[in-house]
Amino acid sequence: MKILILGGAGMIGRKLTEKLIADRELLTADDTLYLHDVVTPQAPEGHDNVVLLSGDITSAEQTDQLAGLQADIVFHLASIVSGEAEEKFDKGWSINMRGGWALLEALRAQHEQSGGSYRPKVIFASSIAVFGPPFPEAINDEFLCAPQTSYGAQKACIEMLVADYARKGFIDGMSIRFPTICVRPGKPNLAASGFFSGIIREPLNGVEAILPVDPSVRHWHASPRSAAHFLVHAAGLDESALGTRRALNMPGLSCTVEEQIEALREVAGEKAVSLIKPQPDEHIKNIVAGWPRNFDPQRALSLGFSAETSFKEIIEVYIADDLPK
Amino acid sequence: MKILILGGAGMIGRKLTEKLIADRELLTADDTLYLHDVVTPQAPEGHDNVVLLSGDITSAEQTDQLAGLQADIVFHLASIVSGEAEEKFDKGWSINMRGGWALLEALRAQHEQSGGSYRPKVIFASSIAVFGPPFPEAINDEFLCAPQTSYGAQKACIEMLVADYARKGFIDGMSIRFPTICVRPGKPNLAASGFFSGIIREPLNGVEAILPVDPSVRHWHASPRSAAHFLVHAAGLDESALGTRRALNMPGLSCTVEEQIEALREVAGEKAVSLIKPQPDEHIKNIVAGWPRNFDPQRALSLGFSAETSFKEIIEVYIADDLPK
Repeated sequence: MKILILGGAGMIGRKLTEKLIADRELLTADDTLYLHDVVTPQAPEGHDNVVLLSGDITSAEQTDQLAGLQADIVFHLASIVSGEAEEKFDKGWSINMRGGWALLEALRAQHEQSGGSYRPKVIFASSIAVFGPPFPEAINDEFLCAPQTSYGAQKACIEMLVADYARKGFIDGMSIRFPTICVRPGKPNLAASGFFSGIIREPLNGVEAILPVDPSVRHWHASPRSAAHFLVHAAGLDESALGTRRALNMPGLSCTVEEQIEALREVAGEKAVSLIKPQPDEHIKNIVAGWPRNFDPQRALSLGFSAETSFKEIIEVYIADDLPK
Repeated sequence: MKILILGGAGMIGRKLTEKLIADRELLTADDTLYLHDVVTPQAPEGHDNVVLLSGDITSAEQTDQLAGLQADIVFHLASIVSGEAEEKFDKGWSINMRGGWALLEALRAQHEQSGGSYRPKVIFASSIAVFGPPFPEAINDEFLCAPQTSYGAQKACIEMLVADYARKGFIDGMSIRFPTICVRPGKPNLAASGFFSGIIREPLNGVEAILPVDPSVRHWHASPRSAAHFLVHAAGLDESALGTRRALNMPGLSCTVEEQIEALREVAGEKAVSLIKPQPDEHIKNIVAGWPRNFDPQRALSLGFSAETSFKEIIEVYIADDLPK
């Protein structure tokens, strides 16, 4: 078995790597794990057969090489984030769309060269950014994709490609639409959603955090631990369970920023909460106003995906998995 | 005013051209009409300022030239049809997706070179093939795109691009999702939907027609006259009416093949009906099984789009506009 993770140096790539090694279900000790990113990923602990790769997926040579590994499972997590894709139109469409398409084309070429015997499982990390307002009370599994960011539009296009390549039998593919992943460990990134993590992570680390939106903003969250679970669970699913629809809304937790802050107060007290500094940012407010607030992800739940059920639980996952000791 | 029609040699391109010239609303006598297709379109009657162009929209040189015309309105109807896109995977994605994207990129370059003053109205001819089963009783304006043909996936991707380029202000764009256009005049084309027209057109011309599906098959139709109306009406809409969603399901008529045949009997008698020869075709049956059957297109209706309300009316439009005298 060979497993390839594109975007292996990113936060979710690392969480996925750790889970694959800890679980020893998809990835046995003898299997090879290929980690690829635009910068060389760090070697993970606990697994010997690791190959570290770096390069630009907008280069056909690169995607040909990656597909040439003939990995059994390809996790496609490589992407620039929403804020950057919104600012840099060309870069976003180039990496998030052309890059993903080039990867699928290269995998199809491998499929055809193998006479059809090579048909990798491809798990594409999509996002709830494929949705745009006006929203229903809770987004069900049949709600349209009408993204209001370039990032969301790019994700929606790759979902279409994954579904069509899978329908034609070139790959066994599916797209999973992540909630906003919270609490992200480490440094802030350029994602417009970064503050949802920042207002929890920074205070827990004794640092001030900026809150650029209203406390009444409601959003849809799941922990990094859940994100890794979604990917591993997706890779283990039999594609026949998906029927004609290969993009799935993942489970998550709907809560307001105010409820996030209350959960922080409960876990870490008033002193932590006092480190959150409101500082309205129109740019971020506008982006976030176009994001979903709640879901009814019945298909994913019925297929065995699960996530946290309270924001307190999400904070506890951060403390257990990521808070520097 | 300059109007550019891509796919100007096709049936809908010709109907649109005729309507623009007959109406004299969008296109005055002094305006220039550019007709482009992969083969040189025929010069239309009744308008002097016509420029006939031909070329391949998958060539960047070609899309640069077309965008360089700086047309005020661009009707993008160029596409290979569903049956061909399903058989020829590369050709379908190349023309229907890469070609359309290249056009949008070339228009954006013109927009940027003009310092933002050039911002064309782009009307993209999409299709109800963006939808896939299982379907509700009637598809509303918030139903997901889950196409079960490559053609539908390509249309859905261009819709995403049109919406994102419009949201960013590069174009004033919208996508209109055509019902199956029926009764198509002239010769059969490669569209898997061709028989819906054939079983009416051929008998009205005294020729046998093959029926490859069950008479119980229900589908969603509008006449070529309505198709031209949709495009012209879309070009005249103020974009503020569209809000955040720039792809619209067009109105149409839901009826079964059996109801089509009954309408033919009413209009042309038993002799015409006897020319329809059932000849089941599994390939076509499978494609058609994945197509929508009924819609509730409230947004389009509220924006002033209209279509036929009985299949008899659709046949009468064919007789009035297209039946050889």
